[in-house]
Amino acid sequence: MKIVVQKFGGTSVATGEGRSKAIERIIGIKEQGFAPVIVVSAMGRRGQPYATDTLIDLIKSIHTDIEPRELDLLISCGEIISTVVMATSLKKIGHPAIACTGGQAGICTDGNFGNAQITRIDPNFIKNQLEQGKIVIVAGFQGVCEDGSTTTLGRGGSDTTATALGAALQAEFVEIYTDVDGVMTTDPRLIPNAAILKDVSYKEICEMAYQGAKVIHPRAVEAAMTGKVPIKIKNTFSDAEGTLIADNVAERVITGLAHMANLSQVKVGPLAGDAVQMAKIRVLKTLAEARVSIDMIGVAPNSIFFTISGDDTGQTGNVLKDAGYNITVETGLAKLSVIGAGMEGVPGVMADVMESLDKAGVTVLQTSDSDITISFLIREADLTKAIKILYDSFNLGKM
Amino acid sequence: MKIVVQKFGGTSVATGEGRSKAIERIIGIKEQGFAPVIVVSAMGRRGQPYATDTLIDLIKSIHTDIEPRELDLLISCGEIISTVVMATSLKKIGHPAIACTGGQAGICTDGNFGNAQITRIDPNFIKNQLEQGKIVIVAGFQGVCEDGSTTTLGRGGSDTTATALGAALQAEFVEIYTDVDGVMTTDPRLIPNAAILKDVSYKEICEMAYQGAKVIHPRAVEAAMTGKVPIKIKNTFSDAEGTLIADNVAERVITGLAHMANLSQVKVGPLAGDAVQMAKIRVLKTLAEARVSIDMIGVAPNSIFFTISGDDTGQTGNVLKDAGYNITVETGLAKLSVIGAGMEGVPGVMADVMESLDKAGVTVLQTSDSDITISFLIREADLTKAIKILYDSFNLGKM
Repeated sequence: MKIVVQKFGGTSVATGEGRSKAIERIIGIKEQGFAPVIVVSAMGRRGQPYATDTLIDLIKSIHTDIEPRELDLLISCGEIISTVVMATSLKKIGHPAIACTGGQAGICTDGNFGNAQITRIDPNFIKNQLEQGKIVIVAGFQGVCEDGSTTTLGRGGSDTTATALGAALQAEFVEIYTDVDGVMTTDPRLIPNAAILKDVSYKEICEMAYQGAKVIHPRAVEAAMTGKVPIKIKNTFSDAEGTLIADNVAERVITGLAHMANLSQVKVGPLAGDAVQMAKIRVLKTLAEARVSIDMIGVAPNSIFFTISGDDTGQTGNVLKDAGYNITVETGLAKLSVIGAGMEGVPGVMADVMESLDKAGVTVLQTSDSDITISFLIREADLTKAIKILYDSFNLGKM
Repeated sequence: MKIVVQKFGGTSVATGEGRSKAIERIIGIKEQGFAPVIVVSAMGRRGQPYATDTLIDLIKSIHTDIEPRELDLLISCGEIISTVVMATSLKKIGHPAIACTGGQAGICTDGNFGNAQITRIDPNFIKNQLEQGKIVIVAGFQGVCEDGSTTTLGRGGSDTTATALGAALQAEFVEIYTDVDGVMTTDPRLIPNAAILKDVSYKEICEMAYQGAKVIHPRAVEAAMTGKVPIKIKNTFSDAEGTLIADNVAERVITGLAHMANLSQVKVGPLAGDAVQMAKIRVLKTLAEARVSIDMIGVAPNSIFFTISGDDTGQTGNVLKDAGYNITVETGLAKLSVIGAGMEGVPGVMADVMESLDKAGVTVLQTSDSDITISFLIREADLTKAIKILYDSFNLGKM
């Protein structure tokens, strides 16, 4: 039995039109001889009665401090309702289907309500149903923890349900249906008609997501990677080929661009005295105790600098000033990252990118790099210009 | 630990006002030193988004022929949403509470979707939570069958959840909150301000329900009776004392009246020949094969007669005529039953009732009786008159 997992988001299940398109995809894969396992999100968006945000609004109207366990139990109903709607829609056109909750599908998680991790999947219920010729519809975004309580998987949840099931069922591939044609080389709000990647490696897509690209959640990719199951990102509403996420993908020096805006850079110093290294460590500890998340940490002889979310600027300034440090803050910054598995061991990539940015008149305030990513801290006002020049210089329109 | 189970219906959980009243009852019982287990129905009625009938309408708008298993999974969400609303409302005023599905509460059923029977209750999860000082809120009307699928208990479901939990937890008593002041001696639509019974035996209340009274479902009573747990029927919105349903209740000759309208009486005959008894059996078999439900079966030397629901009159007539029988049908009839545990072994009750009915000019077409019930088949047009005369003659206004 060759299994394919397909995941459909809220817009694909909320309306009759969306469901018709989704059902075309399901029947299509079944007619190709695959056994389909379908993962669904809750129907629609805030304001529609069974959408996740509507359920949250309902309970927050009663009390704002809701127990995470109870919130999970409540919002899990959104996806459950979708499974029944989808199973019934399939039955109507003569395709036997069975709806199940995450728990019934064998998805076991830890007890970290609101952001649970899948610990184990028992695939027997699903396999048994598939062997009876049924299409199995699974409620995304949810599982059950050891004491039997319902949990939700947090952000990217339904995608993770799909890829984790793909791995547990040793599926041929997982298709994530959405309302765009695939993964783009950069943000289409900045580069209209940005090119769609035909393929991308697990590692690259994770890095793009970590660096701010609105693509599939890294947790979902990791689940597929562990099971070596390819993922296809496709559009429910078009016949575009989509993007394949897999292991053996031709390596490019630069595969895509990602960015995060609304950042601030904080410099702490001058730090004087013999024990200047100890002083730097104390700065980091002070920030950790205040639970401030920092990034792009740089160390100079008598100072230390880093970036924070713009939203944390006020609090961070206060914490450091209260602790007696001199600080300089620059707000309105952005981190632009270039990602490509092929840059590893290729000399001169940083120089090439810097040169392009410089030609366009973009000032680079700071850089950081890891094996397949180089990041540049620039002014937010330069972001669109910077992305355009790199998009052109590195041929990101021709993937 | 002394446990009390309280059940609140849809009107008590749907609005802020209803919930406030329900919460008063819950806190009241907790302050009396009891550990409260609360069973809730879905919120509100058809048209409100999380009511059972609204969920059914949603799915029927997609396809009328829905799988019973999927329907159960869908409508179970209504009660689950109520549990979270109630638990959060309690938390808001400082009372720790935990919400759980029927399955999480340990309610195991058979796999008869839509009308499942409770087979076993594992009380450990609830007991454990109660020991931690939490109020436990359980989704009524639902359980889980052996393969892990969600089931619903059918009519009277949430009441049955409450009484079955009462028995499994060896509760002190079960309170069923509704929007009337208790069980009435007869139908208040026919006798306005009909008296409320202070107490009634398990057996009497079951008999009243079987004979058409709109009271607690017999299945719910049986669960309590098995565990010898008293039930109190009370009004969420008033401080009336309510009705106690228990074992050791003072016996009255007549405790209450119940009725079913829209009945037809069918006479089959004359049945001729030596094998007339065999002919009667064949009539009954013919009806059973046609799945017609019959009641008040009477046998005369060369005929057989019985009552059916008025809705089945046409079909039953056709079945019998097609089989070659002569039939006479009288429509527009009603069955009026008098119920009382004290009538057992008391001679002359039937005569006394018949005499009262005769004085009021009510024609009795047929009677049937069991240990604590006597039923009279009369014309529907005589029903109100008959109930009034018996209500007065047997002092049913003074309970």
